Amino acid sequence: MNKRDLVKKLGVSLLLVGMVITAGCSQKDEVTSEKEKAVKIYKWKMVTTWPKNFPGLGTGANNVAELITKMSGGRITVKVYGAKELVPAFEVFDAVSRGTAEMGHGAAYYWKGKNEAIQFFSTVPFGLTAQEMNGWLYHGGGLKLWTEVYAQYNLVPAAAGNTGVQMGGWFNKEINSLADLKGLKMRIPGLGGEVFKRAGGTPVNLPGGELYTALQTGALDATEWVGPYNDLAFGFYKVAKYYYYPGWHEPGTTLEAIINKEAFDALPEDLQEIVLSACKIVNQDMLAEYTARNNAALNTLVNEHKVQLRAFPDDVLKELRKISDEVVAELAGKDETAKRIYTSFKKYREQVNDWHEISERAFMRARTLK
Amino acid sequence: MNKRDLVKKLGVSLLLVGMVITAGCSQKDEVTSEKEKAVKIYKWKMVTTWPKNFPGLGTGANNVAELITKMSGGRITVKVYGAKELVPAFEVFDAVSRGTAEMGHGAAYYWKGKNEAIQFFSTVPFGLTAQEMNGWLYHGGGLKLWTEVYAQYNLVPAAAGNTGVQMGGWFNKEINSLADLKGLKMRIPGLGGEVFKRAGGTPVNLPGGELYTALQTGALDATEWVGPYNDLAFGFYKVAKYYYYPGWHEPGTTLEAIINKEAFDALPEDLQEIVLSACKIVNQDMLAEYTARNNAALNTLVNEHKVQLRAFPDDVLKELRKISDEVVAELAGKDETAKRIYTSFKKYREQVNDWHEISERAFMRARTLK
Repeated sequence: MNKRDLVKKLGVSLLLVGMVITAGCSQKDEVTSEKEKAVKIYKWKMVTTWPKNFPGLGTGANNVAELITKMSGGRITVKVYGAKELVPAFEVFDAVSRGTAEMGHGAAYYWKGKNEAIQFFSTVPFGLTAQEMNGWLYHGGGLKLWTEVYAQYNLVPAAAGNTGVQMGGWFNKEINSLADLKGLKMRIPGLGGEVFKRAGGTPVNLPGGELYTALQTGALDATEWVGPYNDLAFGFYKVAKYYYYPGWHEPGTTLEAIINKEAFDALPEDLQEIVLSACKIVNQDMLAEYTARNNAALNTLVNEHKVQLRAFPDDVLKELRKISDEVVAELAGKDETAKRIYTSFKKYREQVNDWHEISERAFMRARTLK
Repeated sequence: MNKRDLVKKLGVSLLLVGMVITAGCSQKDEVTSEKEKAVKIYKWKMVTTWPKNFPGLGTGANNVAELITKMSGGRITVKVYGAKELVPAFEVFDAVSRGTAEMGHGAAYYWKGKNEAIQFFSTVPFGLTAQEMNGWLYHGGGLKLWTEVYAQYNLVPAAAGNTGVQMGGWFNKEINSLADLKGLKMRIPGLGGEVFKRAGGTPVNLPGGELYTALQTGALDATEWVGPYNDLAFGFYKVAKYYYYPGWHEPGTTLEAIINKEAFDALPEDLQEIVLSACKIVNQDMLAEYTARNNAALNTLVNEHKVQLRAFPDDVLKELRKISDEVVAELAGKDETAKRIYTSFKKYREQVNDWHEISERAFMRARTLK
C-alpha cells in the first residue's frame, strides 16, 4: 500500500468511525465500551535503542509500525523514534514502562540491571540459534516466562526480530589463545561480556551509534556488533583489521518489542492480536533479511576493504564455552524467577541440540562433503 | 480469545456493520465501493492436502484460519477442510484456482504436473534450510517469482509453514551403499523422487494418510514423511525398522497457502494484509513447533518403540548430491520461467551457503567441540 492509498483508506475508516460513534449510544455498557474501543483511533509512539532507520534493526522497528497501521486499516498509527530522539537508547525500557511511549524496540540483555535473568530472552553465550530461540519462545514455554517477568515492569514483551548467528567481532590483533583477550577493552554486552571479563578482558556496554568513534579514539580495543550487513554500514573496517567468527556469545539474538501494559489492555482484542502479529512477522522477516544480505556484505568487506576473516581457534572456543556454561548456570542462583527461566531454557537446549545434530547440522555437513 | 469472546466480538462487529451500511449511502462511487468492502463479512473455505487436524501441518492450516478471524475481528471467517472432506488432497490446487474454495494449504511440489519449476517453492534436494528458504522468498526475489508463476493459475501464493530439515525416511533394510536403493518402492515426492529414481529406486507419490497401509501391505518398501513429531503420529515404527537421517531430499520444506486471486482482489487492503500476515506468522510458528517437538518424539521412537536410528553413509550422500545437482539443473532447461527461477535460486544458494558455513554451521560445531 503506498502512502496515498493509506490516506484514502484512513479517510474511509474515519468516515465510518464518525457515523458509528453518532449511531451507537443506546447499547448496554459492555457493548458500548467494546464499541468505543473498536472505533477509537490510537496514536502510538515507539522509542528504539537503534539509530533511526538503521538497516535491519531500525528498519525492523519501522516495519512493526507500518504493519500495525496496514493491518488495522489505520486504526492504530505508530510513530517511530530513533535512539536519543525522544529518550536515550538505554532508557527505552523505563520510558515504555512508565508510558512515555506506548511501544519500544530493543533487546532484553540491555536491561540486565533490572534482573539478570532477563538476558535469556535475548541470547546467551553458546545458547540457541534463531530457529531454536523461536522454538523455545513459542512452543517451549519461553514467551510465557518472559511475559510473566515483564508484567512486573508494566510491560508486554514480544519477539520482534532476530539477527541469526552474529560475528565474533572486530579486533586489531590476532586471537591465538585466551591470553590474547587479556586486558582488551571490548564492547560486548550481556552475558558474553561477563564471560569475556572472566577470560581476562574488560567488557564495555555502549550503544551501536557510539562504537565507531570509540574504536577510532582507542576508547575501545575491539568490538562486536552484529554481522557483515550491519558492520559494513557502521564502517568498522576502517578502524579494525581482523573480523572473527563464529559469534559464540550471540548465536541468535532475539530483538524485542515492548508494549506498555495499560496501552495494550486498552486496545480491542483484534488490535491486540494485530500488534502482537506485527511483532511475529518482523521476528521472521528480520532474520530472513540478515540471512539474505550478510554474504554480499561479507564479500564487500573481504574483497573491497581487505578485511581479514579469521576463525577463533578451537581451544579458545572450548575455553570460552566452559566459562559460558558457568556464567549461565550461576544466573539460576540469583532468585526463584531466574531459576525457573534457567531450568526451562536448559532442558529445552539439551533437547533441541540433540535434534539439530541429526537434522540442521547433519544436513549442512552433507551438502559440503568432499 | 475463546469462542465465547469471539462470538461476542462478532456480535459487536455485526452491529457496527449494520449501522454503517444503513448510514453510508450518499458517498461517491469509489468511496462507497471501498466502504462496502470494509463492512462486508467474508466467509471463506480452505481446502487442505492434510488429514483434518493433523499435528503441525493440519493444525498449521487451522492456525492460519484462526489468525485471520482474530485479526479481522471476525470480518473474515475461514472454514478448514481436511483432505477428501471437500476435495481430494491432490485436487486442492485446481479447486482453489477455479474458486471452489477461496484458500488452500499444501506444498508446491505436489503440483509439479503443472510446471516442474514450481517445486523450487517447496524444497529441492540438497537445497535450502528453512531459514535460508525464508531469506530467498522474502528478501532474495523468491516470493516475487512464485507470485508471478501462480498468477497464471489465478492464485496468490504465500509461504505458510516449514518443517525444518526432515528425516531421510523409514526402511526395512539397512542402506550401506547406493546399490541398496535399487528396486525399492519408496514414497518420496517431488525432485527427491526423481533423484531416487535415477539412483535405481521406484518413487511413488501418495498422500500422507495412505502411507501406513501401503507400508503394511507391502505396496511400499519404504517411505519418507516429515520428521519424528509427525512420523510418530502416523505410527510408522510399527511397520518399519530403520529411521534414517538427514533428509537430504527435503532440507527445509516450505508449506504453502494459496488464495484464489479474485477472492483476494475483492478484499479491502487491510484484510488482504491480514490474510498474508496470518500466513507469515504460521510460516514461522510451524517451524518453531517442529523445532520444539521433534526431539521428544524421536526419544519416544528410539527408547519406547525401539526404532533403530541410522545415518546415511557419506558415500551415499555424496552420490545422491551429485544426482541431485543434475536433476535440479535440468529443470532450468524446461522453459524460460524455470530458467529464471533456477538462476535466482542457484545464485542465492551459493551465497547463503558461504555465509552459513561461518555462522550457523560454525556455531553448531563450536558448541559440540570435544
